[in-house]
Amino acid sequence: MTAIDDVLRHLDEQEPATRARYFDFLRIPSVSAQPRHAADCRLAADWLVRELTELGFQASVRDTAGHPVVVAHHPGPGGDAPHLLYYGHYDVQPAEPLELWTSPPFEPTVVPGPNGERVVARGAVDDKGQVMTWLAALRAWQAVAGGPPARITALIEGEEEVGSPSLDAFLQANAEELRAAIAIVSDTNQWDPQTPAVSTRLRGMVYAQIDLRAASRDLHSGMYGGAARNPLNLLSRILADLHDDDGRVQIPGFYDGVTLVSNAQAAQWDALRFDEAAFLGDVGLSVPAGERGLGALERLWARPTCDVNGIWGGYTGEGSKTVIAAEAHAKLSCRLVGQQDPQAVAEGLRRFVAERLPKDVTAEVQIFSTASPIEVSSDSPYVAAATTVLSEEFGRAPALIGCGGSIPVVESFRRILGMDALLMGFGLNDDQVHSPNEKFDWNCLVHGARSHARLLGALGRVS
Amino acid sequence: MTAIDDVLRHLDEQEPATRARYFDFLRIPSVSAQPRHAADCRLAADWLVRELTELGFQASVRDTAGHPVVVAHHPGPGGDAPHLLYYGHYDVQPAEPLELWTSPPFEPTVVPGPNGERVVARGAVDDKGQVMTWLAALRAWQAVAGGPPARITALIEGEEEVGSPSLDAFLQANAEELRAAIAIVSDTNQWDPQTPAVSTRLRGMVYAQIDLRAASRDLHSGMYGGAARNPLNLLSRILADLHDDDGRVQIPGFYDGVTLVSNAQAAQWDALRFDEAAFLGDVGLSVPAGERGLGALERLWARPTCDVNGIWGGYTGEGSKTVIAAEAHAKLSCRLVGQQDPQAVAEGLRRFVAERLPKDVTAEVQIFSTASPIEVSSDSPYVAAATTVLSEEFGRAPALIGCGGSIPVVESFRRILGMDALLMGFGLNDDQVHSPNEKFDWNCLVHGARSHARLLGALGRVS
Repeated sequence: MTAIDDVLRHLDEQEPATRARYFDFLRIPSVSAQPRHAADCRLAADWLVRELTELGFQASVRDTAGHPVVVAHHPGPGGDAPHLLYYGHYDVQPAEPLELWTSPPFEPTVVPGPNGERVVARGAVDDKGQVMTWLAALRAWQAVAGGPPARITALIEGEEEVGSPSLDAFLQANAEELRAAIAIVSDTNQWDPQTPAVSTRLRGMVYAQIDLRAASRDLHSGMYGGAARNPLNLLSRILADLHDDDGRVQIPGFYDGVTLVSNAQAAQWDALRFDEAAFLGDVGLSVPAGERGLGALERLWARPTCDVNGIWGGYTGEGSKTVIAAEAHAKLSCRLVGQQDPQAVAEGLRRFVAERLPKDVTAEVQIFSTASPIEVSSDSPYVAAATTVLSEEFGRAPALIGCGGSIPVVESFRRILGMDALLMGFGLNDDQVHSPNEKFDWNCLVHGARSHARLLGALGRVS
Repeated sequence: MTAIDDVLRHLDEQEPATRARYFDFLRIPSVSAQPRHAADCRLAADWLVRELTELGFQASVRDTAGHPVVVAHHPGPGGDAPHLLYYGHYDVQPAEPLELWTSPPFEPTVVPGPNGERVVARGAVDDKGQVMTWLAALRAWQAVAGGPPARITALIEGEEEVGSPSLDAFLQANAEELRAAIAIVSDTNQWDPQTPAVSTRLRGMVYAQIDLRAASRDLHSGMYGGAARNPLNLLSRILADLHDDDGRVQIPGFYDGVTLVSNAQAAQWDALRFDEAAFLGDVGLSVPAGERGLGALERLWARPTCDVNGIWGGYTGEGSKTVIAAEAHAKLSCRLVGQQDPQAVAEGLRRFVAERLPKDVTAEVQIFSTASPIEVSSDSPYVAAATTVLSEEFGRAPALIGCGGSIPVVESFRRILGMDALLMGFGLNDDQVHSPNEKFDWNCLVHGARSHARLLGALGRVS
């Protein structure tokens, strides 16, 4: 016997309180990339410790070389109840460019949308809103049943948006404490507002910064133009060379380990009837970019990419300045699939840049983060349980999908803790993740919380 | 009879006072490109009016659509004394990047150098220091002889560093007032610390900004990478295409009007024994860039260029952000020679960009400024007079040189006022013009002032 109906009723009754707590969490500008927000990251960690303590957990803020990690334990009912590790991150992307927000990024604002109310704020969905779905489920179980029907460990980090530089060491140092039967991660999307999803495929990543340096100082373009090497022109040539005319990446060895998707896989994705025109149309585009001759979902989920994420150098202020800059900079990231090795791609990128350097120009290639691509087995009992509860909650079976983004922690869990992960998330494609006016549909948060409550019931029953 | 010996002695005696006035002028941060310094530009204009009034001029600040122009008149001795127009600019380049200055850019600082004391400040040479050379000469003539031996008009604008957008209209509206026998401009360099120069060839310019826009907002590079057009990658391709592998510019029609230098011209430049290795070595470079198979001075003075002056887009802050930007931007400038038509080059650039735009990407090409290339006749009586007085002052004849930079006003004087210009400047190649730690050797200022005093005497005698 489970108390699931009572738990779900309690969740529904508590919606206003859940929203108030969610808004408190969003108001903390816990931007991990910006050192001026370091204290805010700690405030977010402290907030989570208070929240989890209220839910009956033994919770603490744990220091790392970077932003702290929150770890919390609930013994559950004891006996042979399974041990579940809930993972999330409290840090958020920078809010810039601020002028494009319609409301302050750290003041959650409710606006109407086609799927009902939506909450606009940095972190609304990624990942504070998604963390809120399972916190609310745990709170309901605590209120109705005195605690969850499983032993729970919560692990909430503060460096996901900068590539989790401290997490691997933390997992290694605390492997025994953290190892569980499965990691449950809510940082992915539904298929659409009506259709839930479990993500079984994640792209990996290499994130790099290229710094070119030529002359010892900025030069007057009249006095030196025609004699002095211009690192901005050179940077453009290097970045332009990254792709051929068919959109294939030219880094040496880049496609080593990339495998074609099976016919069965392709058929399953075809059945999802992905509307790429609408996907692109939502953001003002009409023509797919990327490699030619491939299906849309294959390009997004099963093909690697190389995108320039930022570029700067020379005079970028108002008006004109006739300067040949001394330095030029770019940030870029490769998304990886199949058996691609992030270290090999990083090495290939270094070689690619070095081969294009004329005399007098030096290049530094900094690798900010790497993550291997991963596939989660789609026939695990946890995927089966998720399929059942999502079907109950949404009235239709979840899509088993890929995800173009990276969740490096999933690879770390497998590599360091020997654990698989269940990726059950409730974002939508139009959530403007990492962009101005990030939002989370309130309906998604509610269905997410109810789904997590059901999953706890299902996995607890299993025990 | 002239009072030239007395004038020169007075100049020498007044060096400390000249320096004090020069420093006052340098302390005004009259950066024309930055709207926050608009009031400082007006302060610099007011300062010049006070200075010129002390020198017996009728001086006033004259409004334009942009920063004001200073115009001042001195009747001179009357009779058939020639009418000379002295031109300069009181505006300076932005000081950024501030962190690379060894002293505050608007607090002139004296430091030792191989050629004696040097003054470090934004505008130290370009053009406040050069303007100071002829102001000091006029002051000495005023003190010793009660005024200059010629009728003088001074025209000092405040928008040279942003392409002089208001000057042409001002010249047109005040043509009768401003037209003189010759314009005298000090905004160029000596050949070296010991050798003066008269510049008889100036490159023209087209300065443009390219703004690419793709998606309606910044996108997550995981969610959209492989489907969405990345304007930073595209911008890199467009800028890379600007040159072929031999450094030739690929803008359609770009080389129309470019003529090869004559053998006589090439021989004259060869005789200057330009040390390109030292020229580049001073700024940390060792290998000439630009077109292959051409001499150094030919590349710098007689060949067109296309340099990217600034580039920006996406995430440029600390750390990493996995974003596909909605916009990408670049500033670039072409230096022009011979009969190249700036309007045709601008039009070619627009076409060059438009031809490379895929669907979903729009481009705006803003033209910030244009200037035709120009050659000043080297057998004019004014060049002859300058040759005489510079030979007297320096003990060696001036080099008749080209200049890689643009002084659009020289072209405007010819086109609008039908006047030629005498380009006699006292900068040095290591003055760090437009860069951090701009400087002017005190010796150059002193020789410049003495040369201008002698030139006034020589041209006054001519009358």
